[in-house]
Amino acid sequence: MNISVLGCGRWGSFLAYYCNSVGHNVTLWGRKNSRNFNALKLHRKNEYLILPDEILLSNSLEDSFGTADVIIISISSQELRGFAKKLNLIDNKEDKIFVLCMKGLEASSGSRLTRVFKEEMGNNINVAVWVGPGHVQDFVSGIPNCMVIDSENIDITKRLVNILSSDLIRFYYGQDLIGNEIGAASKNVIGIAAGMLDGLGYTSLKGALMARGTREISRLVGAMGGNSITIYGLSHLGDYEATLFSEHSHNRKFGEEFVKNKKFNKLAEGVSTIKALIELSKQYDIELPICNALYRVIFENADVSGTLINLFLRPLKFEF
Amino acid sequence: MNISVLGCGRWGSFLAYYCNSVGHNVTLWGRKNSRNFNALKLHRKNEYLILPDEILLSNSLEDSFGTADVIIISISSQELRGFAKKLNLIDNKEDKIFVLCMKGLEASSGSRLTRVFKEEMGNNINVAVWVGPGHVQDFVSGIPNCMVIDSENIDITKRLVNILSSDLIRFYYGQDLIGNEIGAASKNVIGIAAGMLDGLGYTSLKGALMARGTREISRLVGAMGGNSITIYGLSHLGDYEATLFSEHSHNRKFGEEFVKNKKFNKLAEGVSTIKALIELSKQYDIELPICNALYRVIFENADVSGTLINLFLRPLKFEF
Repeated sequence: MNISVLGCGRWGSFLAYYCNSVGHNVTLWGRKNSRNFNALKLHRKNEYLILPDEILLSNSLEDSFGTADVIIISISSQELRGFAKKLNLIDNKEDKIFVLCMKGLEASSGSRLTRVFKEEMGNNINVAVWVGPGHVQDFVSGIPNCMVIDSENIDITKRLVNILSSDLIRFYYGQDLIGNEIGAASKNVIGIAAGMLDGLGYTSLKGALMARGTREISRLVGAMGGNSITIYGLSHLGDYEATLFSEHSHNRKFGEEFVKNKKFNKLAEGVSTIKALIELSKQYDIELPICNALYRVIFENADVSGTLINLFLRPLKFEF
Repeated sequence: MNISVLGCGRWGSFLAYYCNSVGHNVTLWGRKNSRNFNALKLHRKNEYLILPDEILLSNSLEDSFGTADVIIISISSQELRGFAKKLNLIDNKEDKIFVLCMKGLEASSGSRLTRVFKEEMGNNINVAVWVGPGHVQDFVSGIPNCMVIDSENIDITKRLVNILSSDLIRFYYGQDLIGNEIGAASKNVIGIAAGMLDGLGYTSLKGALMARGTREISRLVGAMGGNSITIYGLSHLGDYEATLFSEHSHNRKFGEEFVKNKKFNKLAEGVSTIKALIELSKQYDIELPICNALYRVIFENADVSGTLINLFLRPLKFEF
């Protein structure tokens, strides 16, 4: 099968590497002036992996698009709308299956990425998401994990699981696109909170954070018409190890360095997701105390230590 | 208020220390030939804390019992039935409030500890549980956490929360004794599985373990008549940081050293809890794949790596 991967960062390059390893013909696309792309072109490797020779590297969206049956997109979530406008100009888009391999929400609107994509590409487009745990660093060392493919069309979901499964990645059929998209995006926000607790020396409050974090996002998913139990599956709780406890997690590290007043240069997608979740909490009239606390700390200069401790030690008496 | 703490291990000695710190008159009881007790008597400290002079140390159950309003019990779960038989001989037991601060189930019967206690002490006894996250090591350094008091009598629950709350420990009223007891005990089992994954180099599967572990215990709690959501609160998921990720966790360490064929000398309560959960899975006809895998590995010499990997990579297609 012909698969194109659009975006060549840490995940994009791994997705190309992975799809090649399970037997597909892969093209990896990057922007012309992309540092990641140019380094891959020059060295055929990055800090995570060596790119097999069979993988084509291309700067042309038209070429990457043309013969592909499946198009996997892995770019910054906030750039998806603009990117989809470009993709929309290309022919035969309804024959393709698009897979969004990104964990975010549109900051300004709170929209899920499959909705952003459909708003730009039309409602007849086939679009799925690929979410769940796993570190690129571990996958390239052969350590397996479980992930989830979800879409509004069970046939598309099954087809993708069928062509992408391997001993390295066990895929499950997602059963709740709302819950899986909100869950995958919001785990980064809980990861930022975890990093802040680590930075403040309150690592042991990460247990309470897990209980409270899942609960508040679960309530939101329920209000949005999703299944509130989805949050406790692979896309959200199942990704907490990778996000709340791992040294590899950009979002956890962002939180840790934020409280230490260090600048952190890598993308922490969770920061935009906080804005999106605050927007959703207004739209659906759901209280999100952890998201709110992070918003006040990051965007309104509220005191980190006091705000977070208050969050956990505030006078609630009943747990549920 | 007069509080006696029965049992002077890591937790028992901390509970005495804590109750003293919030202003109660505390007696700490230990067996005559107990190494922990004799060391505390001699040095007034252990590897975790220094015992303030106001705390009385006693070997006499009668004395510890006599004037106490609240009696906190922190001994090995499998010894509770025999211990309760002794306590039952003492006068005025119905005037006291007993608090079980232990995370286990009776291995032979699967019984919750409050049931074991009532079977021996009678149904009119006041008994509560004190569960949830927190490391002794962190508490004595002043790092706060959230915990849960639960009982079948909301007045007893409220009274205990009222006399025990502080800035160090924020207590919540438990709302599901079945869920909180099963949850608190079974998190040790998930902790053993986490340690095994760590020992095998599969730390990144701990995310999937959290999603699957909570799910299977949640199903059991539902079948037993408890609230299946309780598992996602402080007593179970909220204790995962302390149990699945901490160096301090005896159960995690037991699992890690088990796969490395090392002998681990400290008590890993979760080993008995595995037996209890297998018993419950038969009684309530609920599949518990993780508990079963651990049972086969620990008690039936099944291959650890193959059994655990199979658990996560077995051919299930739908997540829920």
